[in-house]
Amino acid sequence: MAKIKTIGILTSGGDAPGMNAAIRAVTRAGIYNGFNIKAVYRGYDGLINDEIVDFTTENVSGIINQGGTILKTARSTDFMTDEGKKKAYDNIVKEGIDALVVIGGNGSLTGAMLFAQEYDVCCIGLPGTIDNDLFGTDNTIGYDTTMNTIVECVDRIRDTAQSHERIFFVEVMGRDAGFLAQNSAIASGAEAAIIPEDRTDVDQLAQFMERGIRKSKKSCIVIVSESPKCGALYYADRVKKEFPEYDVRVSILGHLQRGGRPSARDRILASCTGLGAVEAIMQGQRNIMVGMRNNEVVYVPMSEAIRSDKPFDRKLIQVLDELSI
Amino acid sequence: MAKIKTIGILTSGGDAPGMNAAIRAVTRAGIYNGFNIKAVYRGYDGLINDEIVDFTTENVSGIINQGGTILKTARSTDFMTDEGKKKAYDNIVKEGIDALVVIGGNGSLTGAMLFAQEYDVCCIGLPGTIDNDLFGTDNTIGYDTTMNTIVECVDRIRDTAQSHERIFFVEVMGRDAGFLAQNSAIASGAEAAIIPEDRTDVDQLAQFMERGIRKSKKSCIVIVSESPKCGALYYADRVKKEFPEYDVRVSILGHLQRGGRPSARDRILASCTGLGAVEAIMQGQRNIMVGMRNNEVVYVPMSEAIRSDKPFDRKLIQVLDELSI
Amino acid sequence: MAKIKTIGILTSGGDAPGMNAAIRAVTRAGIYNGFNIKAVYRGYDGLINDEIVDFTTENVSGIINQGGTILKTARSTDFMTDEGKKKAYDNIVKEGIDALVVIGGNGSLTGAMLFAQEYDVCCIGLPGTIDNDLFGTDNTIGYDTTMNTIVECVDRIRDTAQSHERIFFVEVMGRDAGFLAQNSAIASGAEAAIIPEDRTDVDQLAQFMERGIRKSKKSCIVIVSESPKCGALYYADRVKKEFPEYDVRVSILGHLQRGGRPSARDRILASCTGLGAVEAIMQGQRNIMVGMRNNEVVYVPMSEAIRSDKPFDRKLIQVLDELSI
Amino acid sequence: MAKIKTIGILTSGGDAPGMNAAIRAVTRAGIYNGFNIKAVYRGYDGLINDEIVDFTTENVSGIINQGGTILKTARSTDFMTDEGKKKAYDNIVKEGIDALVVIGGNGSLTGAMLFAQEYDVCCIGLPGTIDNDLFGTDNTIGYDTTMNTIVECVDRIRDTAQSHERIFFVEVMGRDAGFLAQNSAIASGAEAAIIPEDRTDVDQLAQFMERGIRKSKKSCIVIVSESPKCGALYYADRVKKEFPEYDVRVSILGHLQRGGRPSARDRILASCTGLGAVEAIMQGQRNIMVGMRNNEVVYVPMSEAIRSDKPFDRKLIQVLDELSI
Repeated sequence: MAKIKTIGILTSGGDAPGMNAAIRAVTRAGIYNGFNIKAVYRGYDGLINDEIVDFTTENVSGIINQGGTILKTARSTDFMTDEGKKKAYDNIVKEGIDALVVIGGNGSLTGAMLFAQEYDVCCIGLPGTIDNDLFGTDNTIGYDTTMNTIVECVDRIRDTAQSHERIFFVEVMGRDAGFLAQNSAIASGAEAAIIPEDRTDVDQLAQFMERGIRKSKKSCIVIVSESPKCGALYYADRVKKEFPEYDVRVSILGHLQRGGRPSARDRILASCTGLGAVEAIMQGQRNIMVGMRNNEVVYVPMSEAIRSDKPFDRKLIQVLDELSI
Repeated sequence: MAKIKTIGILTSGGDAPGMNAAIRAVTRAGIYNGFNIKAVYRGYDGLINDEIVDFTTENVSGIINQGGTILKTARSTDFMTDEGKKKAYDNIVKEGIDALVVIGGNGSLTGAMLFAQEYDVCCIGLPGTIDNDLFGTDNTIGYDTTMNTIVECVDRIRDTAQSHERIFFVEVMGRDAGFLAQNSAIASGAEAAIIPEDRTDVDQLAQFMERGIRKSKKSCIVIVSESPKCGALYYADRVKKEFPEYDVRVSILGHLQRGGRPSARDRILASCTGLGAVEAIMQGQRNIMVGMRNNEVVYVPMSEAIRSDKPFDRKLIQVLDELSI
Repeated sequence: MAKIKTIGILTSGGDAPGMNAAIRAVTRAGIYNGFNIKAVYRGYDGLINDEIVDFTTENVSGIINQGGTILKTARSTDFMTDEGKKKAYDNIVKEGIDALVVIGGNGSLTGAMLFAQEYDVCCIGLPGTIDNDLFGTDNTIGYDTTMNTIVECVDRIRDTAQSHERIFFVEVMGRDAGFLAQNSAIASGAEAAIIPEDRTDVDQLAQFMERGIRKSKKSCIVIVSESPKCGALYYADRVKKEFPEYDVRVSILGHLQRGGRPSARDRILASCTGLGAVEAIMQGQRNIMVGMRNNEVVYVPMSEAIRSDKPFDRKLIQVLDELSI
Repeated sequence: MAKIKTIGILTSGGDAPGMNAAIRAVTRAGIYNGFNIKAVYRGYDGLINDEIVDFTTENVSGIINQGGTILKTARSTDFMTDEGKKKAYDNIVKEGIDALVVIGGNGSLTGAMLFAQEYDVCCIGLPGTIDNDLFGTDNTIGYDTTMNTIVECVDRIRDTAQSHERIFFVEVMGRDAGFLAQNSAIASGAEAAIIPEDRTDVDQLAQFMERGIRKSKKSCIVIVSESPKCGALYYADRVKKEFPEYDVRVSILGHLQRGGRPSARDRILASCTGLGAVEAIMQGQRNIMVGMRNNEVVYVPMSEAIRSDKPFDRKLIQVLDELSI
């Protein structure tokens, strides 16, 4: 393997707060250690369309505290085709990129892995997603900020819920994984969470009503994981029909959960793993994701990182149940 | 008229940040000036159901920075009936309440006015509503906080809009009045606002598209006043159909706009008008709303305060048009 | 007077949140109405040193929500000299600037006025200062954000004050004017404010202690206007000596009060007055400040705007006294 | 050992955001599992003075999002005496408290351990301190909120630093441990951190100046750990003397760092460890601290938790050095 001189960097998939801090970290640590940095715009589409520019330390000044991603991002369908990957590789060669750092979630890192299996490119992944659905890292970049945003929103909604003595169903992200809902319910002092992991055989609302909206609590907040069929609107409608005595409202947080100034923790995670990505390249690592466990940078094989859904910690269900009495 | 010894206080209608600061101000200024304070829970329903308790200065400690209302609030339908008003009056007499301070919006103050026309009760209104739809006061209590909340939300959404180069339609409150939408569009640097005042003869979306989503701006945020028929979802659907090349998303802020820590300005407005209400009672005023104009407390006849929709300042349309180029 | 084609813009004096929104508004409204825009860096020093660049609408993209000023700012001593002013004028002529918009506080607008008295330059002022010390405008750009920042800080400090049952002296800006201190004391529910306007003949601390730190309140927050001799440290030391039974602490907010995302209100004020400045130029106005009163844009003769200290509304002292019982 | 029926709970030492969430968790999980809860006011002083009351689930309603501690807190000198401990124990017996949950930092847990060595009381510690100086837990309750508060403050200060092109020395907590300073420097994009761990043989300022305030950066932020002798003021004074060409300012964050709404993470940590404390009692654990490692609740022997200073991760120095270029 030839010596690596030039590192390409891109963000892919849904934007997450802290991606800019990661771009900054890779760029600066790269330059500090003697590499050239090439920034790729609009995710994999930018590789395919050759939207690639040189980056200096100044390009990443003043972005550590900005949400979103200055490199833009997209979910590329072209990159899933053979033709797209071929074009991307041609541009990588043309631009002289020796290693590619991809900041994104499960789908984006899968794309990087498949690409690296076909073409001889050193791919390093950084866990940039609010969904926290990657294996081998305690948290993903963006998750902590999103948790704080949700909790701040629920704190606001509680003012109205208590003033009007209403039941609120608040929908948060996490189509396939309930820990955003479960954890934000714990953190916001919500009365219940309705999550995909618990939907298998029992109807959660029945469960919830069975336990009883306690008499002493006239207002109530239920956090619901988004779902095409049984999201917050679905449960609110059912309660309205079956328990018409309650004043029921819905709030869907939606895209509010993505943006915003990244939290201290997300900035540190992005900074440490960004530098870790450069060190991994220097050590000759390939096709790994850089994460953090126990406050230490770790390298996780890409196939491991995207391996499967993170297990849901069922202890969290107990925590919410006992503390919402 | 007998000397006033006891002041009753209630919050009514939609909750607004700063209501607690107003409750605190009326309670403390009342006690400071020798009155007894009786707090009425759940708006006019609490008058009808005699949910009335004595308040001391301690009851209002530590609430100036809390959203919502510790007195709870409701939209009372019973109070619109003769029977309801009769019961309310009976309880007022029974509790020895000589003057009633009502913190609420247009509907709540109208209720107070009609009540005072039938029964000999000194009613004083405080403009407590995020809708800013009362006449004779520069702002209503809650409006400033809500504006800041909307702008903070749009700042977050913009991170995603720019990162993904999308068009966002963001729906804010103001079914009948567009200045929440228009002003928040100006403050958040949005590209356009769609408001009821401008819907009369021209289709706003056509207007907006005619002017063109400018080529230099690949992302775009449009603030839309909520509306049963033509809210954010309506316009988003039309753009998706007519301009399928755009990536269009919707965010409905909904109840997020109500709660939260009141802004400095709302706390000051609530404090000054709350004290103003007590002074008005001492001066023998009746059936007025206490507002602020040019940083000075003013008394506005109740009939004047609720008179009509505040005029929409069409200059704001020009400001947005020129600054969003 | 020849037709004005080119508008210069600069920020001067202490930075204030909303200055960027004002720069954006002048630039965009200027370009919208056919003017060229020239941005001057580092205040009057940039005029003297010819740090002047052309601005397009893109230069002011994405800055409406940023604190500080992208044009940098400074307090220029050179501009107070005849030589400095001469150099500035030469550069204005050289760059073809016909009108100059100055965003700054009392000192900066005074500089503009004196400059316009000597040289034939159309100077328009915008009230950009957190000090709110300009005449003829209800508020200055930055004041509202600063008030919110102070109140947020005091909310935080109160958590500790109550948990430890301490007396906190919190120092805020306003060397010569007490309304930042007085208003933030009202808004944060502080127990007292020590302000320059009330220092004349009576010692405020004596007054404060005489009224008594009430027995029912074991914690207490006093807001103090900054002062070279009798700021928060001075009063804290005296209480520690004279009342050793209290646990007394000091917090000096200092530069924290300047920066941060501007509030909705400051952005609207900056946007409306920024557009107002361009309209004033189009109307042939000279040597005025553009402010807002009662939500309407007004033109104030520069000499009037800087005329004298804004009168202190002594009613605010009463509000704090009655509501802090 | 007799069966435990009644759990006492207190907060001790400096207040930390999330203490209320911990009080709520212990109270509710305790009641859920059949225990009586007795709340002790003012830390160990409340044990000595018998300021102890029964708590129900309602006592802890609406506090999960509040900073400070509703139980008040203090640093007790009496509890260090034999007489104090004897009185405390007598009251524990009198009140029928079988197990005591102490929420506090290093000093408070040391107090609990020494107490448990002399008297037969089951003591369980929860890591409640912003200082993050306890062993065996990834984080302490309050640390994450404090980090976010510091970063938010530095974000504000940066606006002014950049606008005026100044050097700011910002002093943060951490007299004996530099990771608050080092981590907040990384997270805020500061140019340098001055920490106690690095002061041993080289003067840090010399080091910092040697590396050079780079020419490309005209503004600069240095985070300094508080120190009686060489805090922010000390370094600012030295720079002013040795490099008079710089415009140098100081901001001491002080007590601002303690209060405020706890972050999502601190609330979850407090909730999980609070429940963990009750489970530890049920399992017959004694004299342990409940912490979290790798998102799992762990029991740490009290002597281990307070054992020594957490090791400083010198990798963080490298991260800051490389990313601040």
